[in-house]
Amino acid sequence: MEDRIILAHGSGGKLSHDLIKDLLLRELGNPCLNLLDDAATLTLNGRLAFTTDSYVVSPLFFPGGDIGKLAVCGTVNDLSMVGAIPKYVSLSLIIEEGFLLKELKKIISSIHTTAQKAGVEVVTGDTKVVNRGSADKLFINTAGIGIIPDGVELSGSNAKIGDKIILSGPLGDHGIAILCQREGLKFKTSLESDCAPLNTLVADMLEASKEIHVLRDPTRGGLASTLNEFAESSKVGIKIAEDKIPVRDAVRAACELLGFDPLYVANEGKLVAVVCSQAAEKVLSKMQKNEQATQAAIIGEIVADHPGKVVMKTQFGSSRIISMLAGELLPRIC
Amino acid sequence: MEDRIILAHGSGGKLSHDLIKDLLLRELGNPCLNLLDDAATLTLNGRLAFTTDSYVVSPLFFPGGDIGKLAVCGTVNDLSMVGAIPKYVSLSLIIEEGFLLKELKKIISSIHTTAQKAGVEVVTGDTKVVNRGSADKLFINTAGIGIIPDGVELSGSNAKIGDKIILSGPLGDHGIAILCQREGLKFKTSLESDCAPLNTLVADMLEASKEIHVLRDPTRGGLASTLNEFAESSKVGIKIAEDKIPVRDAVRAACELLGFDPLYVANEGKLVAVVCSQAAEKVLSKMQKNEQATQAAIIGEIVADHPGKVVMKTQFGSSRIISMLAGELLPRIC
Repeated sequence: MEDRIILAHGSGGKLSHDLIKDLLLRELGNPCLNLLDDAATLTLNGRLAFTTDSYVVSPLFFPGGDIGKLAVCGTVNDLSMVGAIPKYVSLSLIIEEGFLLKELKKIISSIHTTAQKAGVEVVTGDTKVVNRGSADKLFINTAGIGIIPDGVELSGSNAKIGDKIILSGPLGDHGIAILCQREGLKFKTSLESDCAPLNTLVADMLEASKEIHVLRDPTRGGLASTLNEFAESSKVGIKIAEDKIPVRDAVRAACELLGFDPLYVANEGKLVAVVCSQAAEKVLSKMQKNEQATQAAIIGEIVADHPGKVVMKTQFGSSRIISMLAGELLPRIC
Repeated sequence: MEDRIILAHGSGGKLSHDLIKDLLLRELGNPCLNLLDDAATLTLNGRLAFTTDSYVVSPLFFPGGDIGKLAVCGTVNDLSMVGAIPKYVSLSLIIEEGFLLKELKKIISSIHTTAQKAGVEVVTGDTKVVNRGSADKLFINTAGIGIIPDGVELSGSNAKIGDKIILSGPLGDHGIAILCQREGLKFKTSLESDCAPLNTLVADMLEASKEIHVLRDPTRGGLASTLNEFAESSKVGIKIAEDKIPVRDAVRAACELLGFDPLYVANEGKLVAVVCSQAAEKVLSKMQKNEQATQAAIIGEIVADHPGKVVMKTQFGSSRIISMLAGELLPRIC
């Protein structure tokens, strides 16, 4: 096998087949994928969730993960956010000619490990190679299918007045880790992306209570944009308290230095839940027992005032409107 | 709205939302997509097909189609090739900063038209924007879900000795149309991509007989690579006759001029079927009544000789081994 990707790896001919067999199937193979048919065939019944995301993160490798881990976690998490149990993912690669095979191998191996951890199978895929300069190294798309258990009804438009807002842990780890890696910044405390599959956390939460109305992972645009989406879709107001929102000291320090607001920085292993107030404490204590959410906290509530708006009580006691991210904070964060 | 895509269109913040609402939902909106949740929720029962493909074709617009039409047809066709009725597709865009909004609009509109024609709905999506120079204008990923009717069992590994091989129409239209557009070549007869959804054709074929063993669309790598895949997966020999294989005069002329072999050129609206010999004539005559396959023909058969190999009887009466495409013929053909 050549040590770099060449255009013929994407030809649909012999080298494509060799790449698929020697690298992709060796790592990810299963009875469904091994057939190499045009589509995977699956037997599934009931309510399904279906999602897709393309990943263009730069750099491809960062503290706490790489584009492969991210591509599995992101899609697993999107399925989890509608309450689905993630089952199957597709994997589509757009590779720049000249990309190192050993890096591709590392990324495929990371996809494998993460898929195993999240309990999903890669059942169908595609590989394209573009000329040097037509893409930046590697882009990955994953789509996913999950099964929604009976009685689960989650949507950004389901928030009700009086509901509590729970955040699963400290904000901004992913965005700041990527930025530091990209710019070669070093802090005394090491910063790692929080990139992780959240399906077991969601399963725990739904076991504690079915009275969860909304779930979403605050990725691009951060917590601020996610809460604004809830306020808009559910036509409600949102009130949060700054002193309740967990942020690691290292992330806070980096944000201050770089002029970022943690509310707008991307996360890849956190979720925000809107939960019926009676069930909130029960859901919270269940979350805190899961390794993905030991620092979970109630950070605010859904209110009748200022529908469509998110208002934060600052640490100084004043109130501030938190709007959706307006420009672009950090391109290619995921 | 700006007249070009800027990085903030991919931020996950306000401009992302505006782009999604003003362009994507306006064109593609439906109750499921309009929710803008992290995943679409669908109710489906039984055997499903799941597939994905990324599209990196260059140029984005070509005679007979564009990247949007191609992205819907390709995924609809992959679902159809396992006998599924295509139902839902996802749409993920990777856009280069600076891309013209009016071109994006044209492509989204073409996605809409093609999806309507094929009877599929876009139910979930994603948009990423990368810095100028990090991608070539626009890449599209579509994944798709379809329902496999009872009794349908298609796979590249199902070819049986004695089966007939049917090709749905003339070879090479897509590849040659792209090449001529790219290189500014003009021929007297206009050459158009054959890019088309094949789901109604497959439905007609399965109505004629359930004794269809394999279906595949010969895209990248052409008919030659597809037949080699069948021979390898089913561990059988394949015999085809050159004089039975339809190729348009204009495509043949272009191929001769440019040094291509139509057997290796990509198609985007053709299929190859391996059909039980008793049912072959019935399936063929049904195909010829569908607008996508008026020139369908039986081009060969599955044999016990030379397992794993494809042998063609040439027009001069000699025999030639047809191997899988070895190098790269035409990068970024789809």
